[in-house]
Amino acid sequence: MRIAIDAMGGDHAPKEIVLGALKAVEEFPNLQITLVGKESEIQNYMDKHPSISILHTDEVITGEDEPVRAVRKKKNASLVLMANEVKEGRADACISAGNTGALMSAGLFVVGRIKGIDRPALSPTLPTVDGKGFLLLDVGANADAKPQHLLQYAIMGSIYMEKVRQFEKPRVGLLNIGTEEGKGNELARKTYELLEDAPVHFIGNVEARDLLNGVADVVVTDGFSGNLTLKTIEGTAMTLFSMMKKQFMANTKTKIAAVLAKNELKGLKNQLDYSEYGGAGLFGLQAPVIKAHGSSNSQAVFSAIKQAVEIVENEVIETISSEVRNLEENKGE
Amino acid sequence: MRIAIDAMGGDHAPKEIVLGALKAVEEFPNLQITLVGKESEIQNYMDKHPSISILHTDEVITGEDEPVRAVRKKKNASLVLMANEVKEGRADACISAGNTGALMSAGLFVVGRIKGIDRPALSPTLPTVDGKGFLLLDVGANADAKPQHLLQYAIMGSIYMEKVRQFEKPRVGLLNIGTEEGKGNELARKTYELLEDAPVHFIGNVEARDLLNGVADVVVTDGFSGNLTLKTIEGTAMTLFSMMKKQFMANTKTKIAAVLAKNELKGLKNQLDYSEYGGAGLFGLQAPVIKAHGSSNSQAVFSAIKQAVEIVENEVIETISSEVRNLEENKGE
Repeated sequence: MRIAIDAMGGDHAPKEIVLGALKAVEEFPNLQITLVGKESEIQNYMDKHPSISILHTDEVITGEDEPVRAVRKKKNASLVLMANEVKEGRADACISAGNTGALMSAGLFVVGRIKGIDRPALSPTLPTVDGKGFLLLDVGANADAKPQHLLQYAIMGSIYMEKVRQFEKPRVGLLNIGTEEGKGNELARKTYELLEDAPVHFIGNVEARDLLNGVADVVVTDGFSGNLTLKTIEGTAMTLFSMMKKQFMANTKTKIAAVLAKNELKGLKNQLDYSEYGGAGLFGLQAPVIKAHGSSNSQAVFSAIKQAVEIVENEVIETISSEVRNLEENKGE
Repeated sequence: MRIAIDAMGGDHAPKEIVLGALKAVEEFPNLQITLVGKESEIQNYMDKHPSISILHTDEVITGEDEPVRAVRKKKNASLVLMANEVKEGRADACISAGNTGALMSAGLFVVGRIKGIDRPALSPTLPTVDGKGFLLLDVGANADAKPQHLLQYAIMGSIYMEKVRQFEKPRVGLLNIGTEEGKGNELARKTYELLEDAPVHFIGNVEARDLLNGVADVVVTDGFSGNLTLKTIEGTAMTLFSMMKKQFMANTKTKIAAVLAKNELKGLKNQLDYSEYGGAGLFGLQAPVIKAHGSSNSQAVFSAIKQAVEIVENEVIETISSEVRNLEENKGE
């Protein structure tokens, strides 16, 4: 198996990308990695390695680039060449911690959709109190979604959680503003009807306030709502942590308290760290395309590589493809 | 001024409602209150008071009632009679801590919309780190909103923050999944264009992760997205607090830490308590209709009454009404 990685994407590229890749080839003996980016910079962090090859390019897409235009114009950017490795069949999957929009664009236009899938979905795993995490899709690949898209997200999410995360009969919830049937906007109401007949374990509407308690394993919503929810969780947690930090600096007593509870407070933060689940999969494409978090360290890069390996090994793409075909055929009956 | 209050709505009714009302008539000498509900139960918590009258009814809408049907069928429910006091001109404003959907329904069908306003918006003030708070509208009165509705929310929200909360030139942000113009779903993109020409201080798109840091004073969005955002903030904060509590019970050291930092940790929770800002206004109706939180204690009920008094005194409804008229006239030019 070969995975192409954008060595220039992310806040700590190429160093942490290279270190993550080195860790991965130690762990997976059959894995080959192609690092795409500036050869001399990459070589600063690694010697020659039999399982890692470098595809050199000087061009890079930055976080400031307008995604669609960047993918079209910067044809030799590391992110684009990485996607091209997959398209040309020289890699089985690809990973970038760079510009999210550009990766979605390259995924769509270079790697291409699975036949029958209307829209890919960006699908991170978010933390839950019990440590199992839940898959949220879509968080922004497709801001104006239709019920049919959400149905496909439910199927893709279920397959991923079952095959890769080993959940038996993953519980699929529809993100909504009330739990009763008939709640929500038109999109939610129509999607509810479709999910009732879908080949997934649909448990009904779920509310945003219950997400971190693990109310469902797969939560489907449109890209606008999903992105809002993701960023609200992140923002609220960040704000609370910074407020907490301030409170612990208030006086001598609280400073002593902070020292006494140091490990546990750190543990609290780690419980909410979702890099261990890997990156956000861009599901619905003809090969695994993984968006690693922009701030990924080598461990997070390793997790994303592991995730890509498991998606390939467990034939997630093939299963999605055949499930969608089945769905289409049943509809025709 | 007279305010009608649903004495039977909320988790701690009628006790905390009555106590809040008593506090309010002490504070505001010109205030008259009509408590609507079971007379004998109300009298358990108060003696005769010159500024408080009781409108007796046995019928009550519960949290389990289907809102629209309940308002239609239970014509003598305390919540409906309360709204009726406003409709008949016997009260200037009304407040309930009961069934949110039923209050929205009674507001719409009994109190009625301001001419020119298409949809009322449920508008709570959420906490920010600096303690000033921001107004979020809509959080669920109207799940399928149009750009024109969001424009009206922006105007109503600005007027409220300026007149009641004394913000000079309140900063209006459009909740979106990116800050650049052109981001988001169709609704957000079209609303952006309208807001650029609106008679408000529009500062552009704001992201969910920046809300608690006070990125804007008024944040407009559709009812579905607003409700998701509100509940995600609540859910994330609740989950974090319960995780924190657990961590502090981990061992002897952390238990000592918890005692040492007790006041500051409590302060942290209070910083996020938004009952001091009053309830959620249902803006766009012909009179102030306030939804107090279901778990309101007497202090929260008092805050909601204070809020209603200030809306009436500062002629918020009249100002909204004339602003909307101006907008319509300018459009006609």
